Amino acid sequence: EVKTQKGDYLIGIGKKDFDIRAIGYMDGIKDIHIVSDDYKLVSRKWKVNPTYIDLGDGIKIQEGGFQIMAGPCSIEGEDQIRKTLAHLKENGISIMRGGVYKPRSSPYSFRGMGIDGLKLWYELAKEAGIKIITEVMQVSQIEEMDPYVDIYQVGARNTQNFNLLDELGKNTDKPVMIKRGISGTIDELLYSAEYVFSAGNERLLLCERGIRTYEKATRNTMDLNAIAVLKEKTHLPVIADPSHGIGIRHHVAPIALASIMAGADGVIYETHEKPEEAYSDGQQTLNFPESNKLIHQMNKTFELRESF
Amino acid sequence: EVKTQKGDYLIGIGKKDFDIRAIGYMDGIKDIHIVSDDYKLVSRKWKVNPTYIDLGDGIKIQEGGFQIMAGPCSIEGEDQIRKTLAHLKENGISIMRGGVYKPRSSPYSFRGMGIDGLKLWYELAKEAGIKIITEVMQVSQIEEMDPYVDIYQVGARNTQNFNLLDELGKNTDKPVMIKRGISGTIDELLYSAEYVFSAGNERLLLCERGIRTYEKATRNTMDLNAIAVLKEKTHLPVIADPSHGIGIRHHVAPIALASIMAGADGVIYETHEKPEEAYSDGQQTLNFPESNKLIHQMNKTFELRESF
Amino acid sequence: EVKTQKGDYLIGIGKKDFDIRAIGYMDGIKDIHIVSDDYKLVSRKWKVNPTYIDLGDGIKIQEGGFQIMAGPCSIEGEDQIRKTLAHLKENGISIMRGGVYKPRSSPYSFRGMGIDGLKLWYELAKEAGIKIITEVMQVSQIEEMDPYVDIYQVGARNTQNFNLLDELGKNTDKPVMIKRGISGTIDELLYSAEYVFSAGNERLLLCERGIRTYEKATRNTMDLNAIAVLKEKTHLPVIADPSHGIGIRHHVAPIALASIMAGADGVIYETHEKPEEAYSDGQQTLNFPESNKLIHQMNKTFELRESF
Amino acid sequence: EVKTQKGDYLIGIGKKDFDIRAIGYMDGIKDIHIVSDDYKLVSRKWKVNPTYIDLGDGIKIQEGGFQIMAGPCSIEGEDQIRKTLAHLKENGISIMRGGVYKPRSSPYSFRGMGIDGLKLWYELAKEAGIKIITEVMQVSQIEEMDPYVDIYQVGARNTQNFNLLDELGKNTDKPVMIKRGISGTIDELLYSAEYVFSAGNERLLLCERGIRTYEKATRNTMDLNAIAVLKEKTHLPVIADPSHGIGIRHHVAPIALASIMAGADGVIYETHEKPEEAYSDGQQTLNFPESNKLIHQMNKTFELRESF
Repeated sequence: EVKTQKGDYLIGIGKKDFDIRAIGYMDGIKDIHIVSDDYKLVSRKWKVNPTYIDLGDGIKIQEGGFQIMAGPCSIEGEDQIRKTLAHLKENGISIMRGGVYKPRSSPYSFRGMGIDGLKLWYELAKEAGIKIITEVMQVSQIEEMDPYVDIYQVGARNTQNFNLLDELGKNTDKPVMIKRGISGTIDELLYSAEYVFSAGNERLLLCERGIRTYEKATRNTMDLNAIAVLKEKTHLPVIADPSHGIGIRHHVAPIALASIMAGADGVIYETHEKPEEAYSDGQQTLNFPESNKLIHQMNKTFELRESF
Repeated sequence: EVKTQKGDYLIGIGKKDFDIRAIGYMDGIKDIHIVSDDYKLVSRKWKVNPTYIDLGDGIKIQEGGFQIMAGPCSIEGEDQIRKTLAHLKENGISIMRGGVYKPRSSPYSFRGMGIDGLKLWYELAKEAGIKIITEVMQVSQIEEMDPYVDIYQVGARNTQNFNLLDELGKNTDKPVMIKRGISGTIDELLYSAEYVFSAGNERLLLCERGIRTYEKATRNTMDLNAIAVLKEKTHLPVIADPSHGIGIRHHVAPIALASIMAGADGVIYETHEKPEEAYSDGQQTLNFPESNKLIHQMNKTFELRESF
Repeated sequence: EVKTQKGDYLIGIGKKDFDIRAIGYMDGIKDIHIVSDDYKLVSRKWKVNPTYIDLGDGIKIQEGGFQIMAGPCSIEGEDQIRKTLAHLKENGISIMRGGVYKPRSSPYSFRGMGIDGLKLWYELAKEAGIKIITEVMQVSQIEEMDPYVDIYQVGARNTQNFNLLDELGKNTDKPVMIKRGISGTIDELLYSAEYVFSAGNERLLLCERGIRTYEKATRNTMDLNAIAVLKEKTHLPVIADPSHGIGIRHHVAPIALASIMAGADGVIYETHEKPEEAYSDGQQTLNFPESNKLIHQMNKTFELRESF
Repeated sequence: EVKTQKGDYLIGIGKKDFDIRAIGYMDGIKDIHIVSDDYKLVSRKWKVNPTYIDLGDGIKIQEGGFQIMAGPCSIEGEDQIRKTLAHLKENGISIMRGGVYKPRSSPYSFRGMGIDGLKLWYELAKEAGIKIITEVMQVSQIEEMDPYVDIYQVGARNTQNFNLLDELGKNTDKPVMIKRGISGTIDELLYSAEYVFSAGNERLLLCERGIRTYEKATRNTMDLNAIAVLKEKTHLPVIADPSHGIGIRHHVAPIALASIMAGADGVIYETHEKPEEAYSDGQQTLNFPESNKLIHQMNKTFELRESF
């Protein structure tokens, strides 16, 4: 039995055949589905209609809509936040990305501004009418972060941090975007979503951000196949991250546009007033003029796709 | 010193610094370039203007143009050829793909109709005003095939068959499309092109067809990053093969469209009147109505890209 | 400045050249090393002598010694624990492995006996004079687990759970074995060790357990190259896990013996009285007669290696 | 129907059930096997007894024996050949490796001494009582090379050069060692062997030489799992190539020894009087003192393995 914000589900897992009508006749049972996938609740076999995420103030993420999330890799301070918000507003963008807790391979790298950076950012974004998405790295951060987050991001190194997934299912009603693992399979991403969903939080997004392969000419290998496959397998919205997917600034735009044609419901990318001075990921970050141009092109590309 | 159809090149490879003006003053030297890439002749650092392939009868493959190549995995017989040609003509497509020599993992699979199939196909296509592209598997086939081929294809298992590349450089003036190896790097693909180019044949196309990764939900992992990177690194046209890139019939179209946004100069894909009866690759082959629709969408997508 | 249990280290990270003798003349500085690796404290360039882990009661893990850790995938109950302990004692093995918190891809799989299972197991093992190694999955478990653990294991899905690594550095003096990530690089494993070491806990072991590749005939691809490379790069002991490395019961033994020849300081593998009835990983678990035989062969192989 | 040097085989491939006794009663049928693997003739399900390769003069490659093949990457000239032969004789080694046709990623690299180098080498080796193994790159080389070859090697870039495999099946009775593809699966290697075997040449060896993965600390990832799996699946001898498998000179020895424990029937590695002056692969080539030591250790390791 699984309780979520929208209702209770009774999930039966088993290999034996039995007459499911016996359940259907029981009191309080609204509907029965037989789902052959191992992930039950996030499967489109169970729920055909796409999930949409309502962020309030008329901002939604949904199939058939198109949402852009843009901002710096790391939140660096008030001036940077204000300039980014202004850039987004000028372009009609409703969601700003940024990191205050940064997972870093080396313990000696910049690890982010932490909770104070988050509070500052959240207040400034709220004033500007913009929602924020930011990474949560561990269970103990949830309580503190929760009032200042519009969407949680689970990073590629935490896709299989099952305790974190469990807690994001149980202890928040904020939406959660789960990134595919660094070398995660499509199925593993769906299972990770199943953790959060079955623990009680149905407001989920999935994100393709490139996978690790032998090819070293690019930071990761953006797997646009995965977007096409995910759109078939699950009712959850699918977001593309071309910045991490290719990792080279002047190639971000074509991969962003390609992601839309592959079926993405949204794109998240990195932009900064001065990428060369960014605390992290500058090599894959667009400056504002590049970002202006990309936004225009993405909107046109989405329009064309929807016309097909 | 490298002789090609368009002229002779003197390539100097070395690590020592010397005054290149000493060469520039020599008789008969038209121009000098210093190319830091290990592949010299196919690099855009050496030749900034894009190469175009003129197939005659007004049919060209070139940057800024867009060419579609479609047809079955295997050539199966006259009826199939005629129906495919008719389908292409209706859609204004100028190049038909098909295999008469099929590389197969198992020695017990269908290996193609061979040279007789090629002759039949070539004559029918010529009547219809359509060019053909087909795979050459070994050096000894070149002489026999040459009169009946418009474009040679070097398959993913032969990308590093260096003898074959050498011979295609020396013994034909027909264009050659080299597919990326099954787990080939972008650099290896460029080196393979350098083999053919430096052996004398400059009429080259490169093709991204998906790479081998750990992900098994799709046949290969289509690497659209590679298209963006190749378009920067080389002056040769770049073609996308979404059929092999994802390997699942109902996902071919979004990946084809995505490839165009990533920068492809053309798309090659598999179509057959009755995919379920095709001798090979039926699971990734479009039927004609699906193909009609995709052609329309690709043309629209290319138009939009060029408008940016 | 980094404080650990054995002393304080002053680490300078920077690109500028300066006269390091200026530091050497300062009071309280015992020694200075220049380490060009990005991981400083775990590098053999800094500390040439191998680290050894003293578990008490004469049980050590160290270069030039050889330690076997064996036991079930999951702790299942008292009877299973007692039988495994007896099997280990008969063979002179000093360390038992087992999981009480199990990371599982699907939320519907068995997730382990938890803290009560750990307490029971620890008491029984202590009576038997045997040390235990078990996986910790999250920060909040450390305090509760700490009295009942001899060695913590950080699993392949948590190799880059940097908060967990930080806490294992700060809040325990128990040894920690870090498994290589599912598709982690050798460098990333060393960086993860650097997290724990620089946070204060020097008692570290590294473990090669196979990586994710395109090859699907085996569960993972055991990377014995990594053992040879790690033994060169770091002073920490290196353990091999052939059970996960190949994932097929009847192939565990040859890979275990191969690991020793590649340079492993110890082997960890799965054994169970009745593998076919094990709650998890039965397909890669040895029964006791197979385990008896393997222990004998490993000891002989280690002896031979040391004679070279 | 498949004809080989040892007899004719009638292979039935199909999915329908029928009474195989109907075939058994036919004249001239000696034995019937049902083999569920897609590769039939190289499967151990069909032929339980291991294949052995008799090279003449008492030199055999076989399960339960152990053969070492050593020599330079490239044959460079008479002096180098003589010195290598002397080194091998001193150590009781019967097979020398070397390349006269070198597949090179770049067309500007050294491509080998060719047929004249082969003739010279073969004569010198014959005098010394030593057999040679060398790579054949294309069909047209077979006729010319055949009198001067003891074992053909098919390189990792030609594992799926099906025409070459076919011809090595039909037009020579010399043994053939097939290397696993650069990112070839175990099954693909077995299929490639099936090509040669079903075309008529049963004298086959398989070679694991490392696969391409994301890990860049080593040249390739030596997959010792593959050796264990191949020894189960096929009756053909399996050889390990630690030189290419790890690609780092001072790590070749531990990987060679590990390969033996994993089940290899032989080891092939690169040695040169002065590795730093070798025309190719110097970074992974042992000098003669290192080679002496390794041979001793390999023989001891094989002895121990056989004692188990």
